[in-house]
Formats: sequence, C-alpha cells, structure tokens
Amino acid sequence: MKVLGIDPGTGIVGFGVVELVSGKLKMLDAGVIRTPVKEVDSVRLKTIYDEIMSIIKQNNPDVLAVEKLFFSKNVTTAMSVSQARGVILLCGEQNKLPVFEYTPLQIKQGITGYGKAEKSQVQEMVRIILNLKEVPRPDDCADALAVAICHSMTQRFA
Amino acid sequence: MKVLGIDPGTGIVGFGVVELVSGKLKMLDAGVIRTPVKEVDSVRLKTIYDEIMSIIKQNNPDVLAVEKLFFSKNVTTAMSVSQARGVILLCGEQNKLPVFEYTPLQIKQGITGYGKAEKSQVQEMVRIILNLKEVPRPDDCADALAVAICHSMTQRFA
Repeated sequence: MKVLGIDPGTGIVGFGVVELVSGKLKMLDAGVIRTPVKEVDSVRLKTIYDEIMSIIKQNNPDVLAVEKLFFSKNVTTAMSVSQARGVILLCGEQNKLPVFEYTPLQIKQGITGYGKAEKSQVQEMVRIILNLKEVPRPDDCADALAVAICHSMTQRFA
Repeated sequence: MKVLGIDPGTGIVGFGVVELVSGKLKMLDAGVIRTPVKEVDSVRLKTIYDEIMSIIKQNNPDVLAVEKLFFSKNVTTAMSVSQARGVILLCGEQNKLPVFEYTPLQIKQGITGYGKAEKSQVQEMVRIILNLKEVPRPDDCADALAVAICHSMTQRFA
C-alpha cells in the first residue's frame, strides 16, 4: 500500500510518499510545494492543486493521509491553511483516493507511542523508520512523511 | 459585465449571477448548492467544485466575487467554511476569472450605504435593485446576490 501524506499550509505544503515493502516502510518521494507570498490566494491555491495532482499522477498512491488542524489562537492562519486543505482534499476525491485525517496527537502517538512527544523526537523516528541518513528538511516535509507513516502503521497493526 | 457572487459554506453555498444591462442590474441566475451532512469533507468539497464549475460554464461570468470571512469565535466553523472557500477560489482561477473578495462590512456599505445595516435591509435592497417581487430565499442565495451587486456597483462608480 502506497500512502501519500500531506502537511497542509498556504506558503508551504509538505508531501511524502511511503510504501510498505517486505515488511519495511520505504520512502518513495518527498518534498515541499512553495507558493509565492506576493500572489493572491486563488493563484496560490491553483499552484497547490496543480502540484498535488502532478504528485498523485507520478506516484499513484492508494491512499491520501492529511494532517488535521486544531487551531485555537490564530484564526486568520487557520482559515488560510484550511483553504489549502480544501483544495488538497478535493485532489484526493477527484482521484478517487480514500482520504484519512490525523490530528497531531494521533501522529505523535502513532509514531513514537507517546502523544506528547517533542517535534524532534517525531522527526528522529521518521528518519529511523524510513532508514534515512538525515532527518528530511524542511520540517513540513518531515511532518508529511510522519502523517504517511502514521497511516501505514495504524493500518498495518489494525 | 457579468458577475458571479458566492456566499461560501460547507453545508450550503449561495450563488448569484448579475449583469448590468442598459444601466440596470439584472439577475441572470441564483440558487444554492447543498451538500449532505453525512458525507466526509472531501466528498462535499468535490460536490461544491463540480457545481461551481457547472455554474461558471452555464453563465460564463467575467468576474468572481466572494464573501470574505471574519470569524473570531467558532474556529471549527471558520476552518470548515475556509475549506469550501479554497475550492471556490480554485474554480475561479481555473477559469481565469479575476477574483474579488468583499467583507460583510463592505457588502453592507456598498449596497445600503451603511456598514452596520441589518441583514433584512440588505436583502430588501437586493430585491429592489434587481427588481424582484420577493427577497430571494434562502438567505445564502440573497447573500450571494448581495456580493455580486456589491462588486457591480463598486466597479460601476469606481
């Protein structure tokens, strides 16, 4: 099963594709989509849409796993990220991918076994699980891989 | 100039198309898109996308005018509506429509000349301006027409 994990944002969207091969999780693709701050929302959202559609076409995942937001303070940021999230969920649906959403708590719990783990601990587990030499950069990319791993492991041991 | 106005939401999206004909604003199309509460977000967002794309195809507007949100209390609602907004802005961009956003204050100001007008006053002005027998129902439909009128009048007297 190939899982595309996404960490949504407006300025930067992280993505990561992992697959379970012979009992081990392997990273197939990972990176970030950046959108120019000077552009209006609609242009930035179309960039995100085009890039995600292209990533899905290239990697042909079976599932889309997206980080779920829980904002309490900055409503403006929450609304901006949610606009990007709407476009990302649409991409999944247009490609008939089952869409799963995970909260930061579920992701930490799923990867480190501890819901209050530090960000650095999660990232180090991503590195170890995927057998990488270094933690993927930037953070958004590592976070996207974390969502993809979380879904793979949850499904695996379900 | 034909303007498509949208009042975004998750459960219900209002839309209205108005055109300036011989110095008078005319309503060409209006209604609401409803999405089933029992469906997951991605399915509801695809319904909104498909319907908006179809409305644009049928009406061939020159401009997209969308109500801008200012939530301060219910972050969950704000995030849900923003997801729909993201998809709506994407539709505009994919059809190469210039996208304009108006706050509720700007819409009230633009239509009644008074930023703190009551909702019923705005709706009555929509009815009068478009020469309709009754106020369009539901509210989301009247709100969408208000955005479209706001843009038409702002541009007209700019």
